[in-house]
Amino acid sequence: MSRAEKPILVFQTDFTYAEGAVSSMYGVVKTVDRELEIFDGTHQLPKFDTWSASYRLYQSLPFWPKGTIYVSVVDPGVGTSRRACVAKTCDGYYIVTPDNGALTHVKRYMGIEAVREIDETVNRYPSTRGVAVFGGRDVFGYTAARLASGIIDFEGVGPEYPVEEIVTHAIPEPEIGEDGASGILEIDDPNFGNAWSNIPTDRFCEAGFAYGDMVRVCLKKNGTIVFDEVVRFDRSFGFVEPGMPILYNNELEKLALAVCQGSFIETYGVAFGPDWTIAVSTPSGSPLSL
Amino acid sequence: MSRAEKPILVFQTDFTYAEGAVSSMYGVVKTVDRELEIFDGTHQLPKFDTWSASYRLYQSLPFWPKGTIYVSVVDPGVGTSRRACVAKTCDGYYIVTPDNGALTHVKRYMGIEAVREIDETVNRYPSTRGVAVFGGRDVFGYTAARLASGIIDFEGVGPEYPVEEIVTHAIPEPEIGEDGASGILEIDDPNFGNAWSNIPTDRFCEAGFAYGDMVRVCLKKNGTIVFDEVVRFDRSFGFVEPGMPILYNNELEKLALAVCQGSFIETYGVAFGPDWTIAVSTPSGSPLSL
Amino acid sequence: MSRAEKPILVFQTDFTYAEGAVSSMYGVVKTVDRELEIFDGTHQLPKFDTWSASYRLYQSLPFWPKGTIYVSVVDPGVGTSRRACVAKTCDGYYIVTPDNGALTHVKRYMGIEAVREIDETVNRYPSTRGVAVFGGRDVFGYTAARLASGIIDFEGVGPEYPVEEIVTHAIPEPEIGEDGASGILEIDDPNFGNAWSNIPTDRFCEAGFAYGDMVRVCLKKNGTIVFDEVVRFDRSFGFVEPGMPILYNNELEKLALAVCQGSFIETYGVAFGPDWTIAVSTPSGSPLSL
Repeated sequence: MSRAEKPILVFQTDFTYAEGAVSSMYGVVKTVDRELEIFDGTHQLPKFDTWSASYRLYQSLPFWPKGTIYVSVVDPGVGTSRRACVAKTCDGYYIVTPDNGALTHVKRYMGIEAVREIDETVNRYPSTRGVAVFGGRDVFGYTAARLASGIIDFEGVGPEYPVEEIVTHAIPEPEIGEDGASGILEIDDPNFGNAWSNIPTDRFCEAGFAYGDMVRVCLKKNGTIVFDEVVRFDRSFGFVEPGMPILYNNELEKLALAVCQGSFIETYGVAFGPDWTIAVSTPSGSPLSL
Repeated sequence: MSRAEKPILVFQTDFTYAEGAVSSMYGVVKTVDRELEIFDGTHQLPKFDTWSASYRLYQSLPFWPKGTIYVSVVDPGVGTSRRACVAKTCDGYYIVTPDNGALTHVKRYMGIEAVREIDETVNRYPSTRGVAVFGGRDVFGYTAARLASGIIDFEGVGPEYPVEEIVTHAIPEPEIGEDGASGILEIDDPNFGNAWSNIPTDRFCEAGFAYGDMVRVCLKKNGTIVFDEVVRFDRSFGFVEPGMPILYNNELEKLALAVCQGSFIETYGVAFGPDWTIAVSTPSGSPLSL
Repeated sequence: MSRAEKPILVFQTDFTYAEGAVSSMYGVVKTVDRELEIFDGTHQLPKFDTWSASYRLYQSLPFWPKGTIYVSVVDPGVGTSRRACVAKTCDGYYIVTPDNGALTHVKRYMGIEAVREIDETVNRYPSTRGVAVFGGRDVFGYTAARLASGIIDFEGVGPEYPVEEIVTHAIPEPEIGEDGASGILEIDDPNFGNAWSNIPTDRFCEAGFAYGDMVRVCLKKNGTIVFDEVVRFDRSFGFVEPGMPILYNNELEKLALAVCQGSFIETYGVAFGPDWTIAVSTPSGSPLSL
């Protein structure tokens, strides 16, 4: 295979670039095969947060060329009994990751065709065999490089196991009706301070809502109201004045909350996860029971 | 074209690497053309700060090979009526950016030969046509990739418009005379804590000042004195003791202020912009009227 | 040489990505030779910290392909009389760096075969000859690119000088006996909050200790006890409950301290350097005199 025929490797971890870990990990990849292309997905995933790892995979993977190998290393159980695996998605991507919940969103929304446990007797960087704490360098990056390089094929990763055994987080389903929609705050944009729900915008609009409408948004944490305001629903932040909240259609075409040129999550003290529910109705409607 | 004949893409944004946005944006580029080379300019521009975007373009662009395509996405008006454009500089670089002030310094100091508005009916990532909030992925990165790849030429970007219509910030001009020099603090180095003026060092030296001189430096914010001290003027930080302020010749050959192995901007509470003026004179001179 | 035959360039600095410095530096490299491959080692080294620069080189360099050129720019003395150099390691890597202590660990643990002072009359970016403050862009990156590209060979760097003249920090040697081991806290992992000693795990185990043992760990700063507890010694963090301290075998196969899913250095207020000593003994043993 020529350079451009070998899959791209994209890495996301919770390592940060603060010390030499990413460098060592990428060095191993280039030692396996000089021709491989490597990209940073992000190295700033929240530490030990397999939910965020799962969401960021789902957010970014589909924009890469088919066949891309995404390596995800958020691994609080490193060196213990969790499985190290390679999953093949239904549309032809590969994900190399500890099987600890990081495959949740991809399995639910994209589908996983097959999954194999990494056989570390073969697919482990030889010179660091005594080390148990750096799967990113010694197992995940090394295996991904061998797969991208063609040294092993998918079967060469190790034994297949049932897709049903993949460890997943529960994902509540959104509900959309003519009175409004409800769901959860599924993730944030920590930089711009936006809160993203799991409610698809197209289904919300099919239920009768339209850009330019005013809507009532109610956010609860474990059932306690945190935010309950009537805001504009529109295509982008700039349709309200700076400092004002808005409900908009985010980059994954789901409903999301922002403050124009400000931070919704900081202004209103909002986080994300299954504890955080959102209900959207007409201004005079009552939020759906959650 | 072979890989090395296609222009490099360099990206600067205010996205940070905290979530999956950069990854998605780069994925689209590689989906357009596997052969394109991508570099991070920076993803840590201050949020919504089109002045900083403009300065960082000016600071870094000239060090890349001619023909390089620099994508700059600081876009507080995303999804509203600001123009998305591609500018061609007089020396053959391309800049893909919202036309919102980000071209200020390049237009003033390097010159822009022509500018075209991106025709989003053609140059927009098809599968996310409903999304208005992620120009970096769906418009700027996508268009830059098509241009670099040769799928479109500069004319294929969209309709040309007059260079005079480009949105710019006002840039005050420095004044240099035999009594000294005055200008503004144009930007900072947020990491090392240096403050950079817009006064060219060569003109300052032509006016009679020389490395090793002691000089009086007066900084004002909106006319109020913030710093007024006699400091050494020299080639580099190391010519004063750690902790001492110094006036030096910065990487763009302009006068700048540092504290040796410390932070000038933190020590003295200094920021940048047209509100911040600097005057430099002989130790016994009085700072120029500003 | 084809692309894949030219050495990779890896950069580590204390510049951060907060402004345009890294971009300018990489732009110069690509201007010298479009075919060169560039990787971020890290740009978040602690400012002015040549000890950390030295350790990160040692940590990461060996994982890259032989022949890789590592550029390290932590340069508090930029523009003054410290030497700019290229060192060739005994196993065939090149390091381009100010000679200010950054070669300490590589010289001690990997060995340096030869070192040459960069002749700036030849190996200096021509268009910025008046600038003294940006060695990364104008000298180190530029020289590394010329070396990688084959424009100069190692002799072309400049005059050789004795390896014995390389500036180094003192590195205390660890001591291992049947009663236990002593050494220093040599560096930290600032992200996960681990503290790494200079005691090789294999020698510790040869002295009779084994994974699963409980051991007494005593940390002192300048002789004053900061931490003195009995903890588990094992392969990885996950062998104790979240929040508990553990002594483990780190990625360089040395003894290190962590808190499972927490931060050892924050929890116990620990830093690193020659002032910080560690002694490990049996639970009932008394820590070695340090």
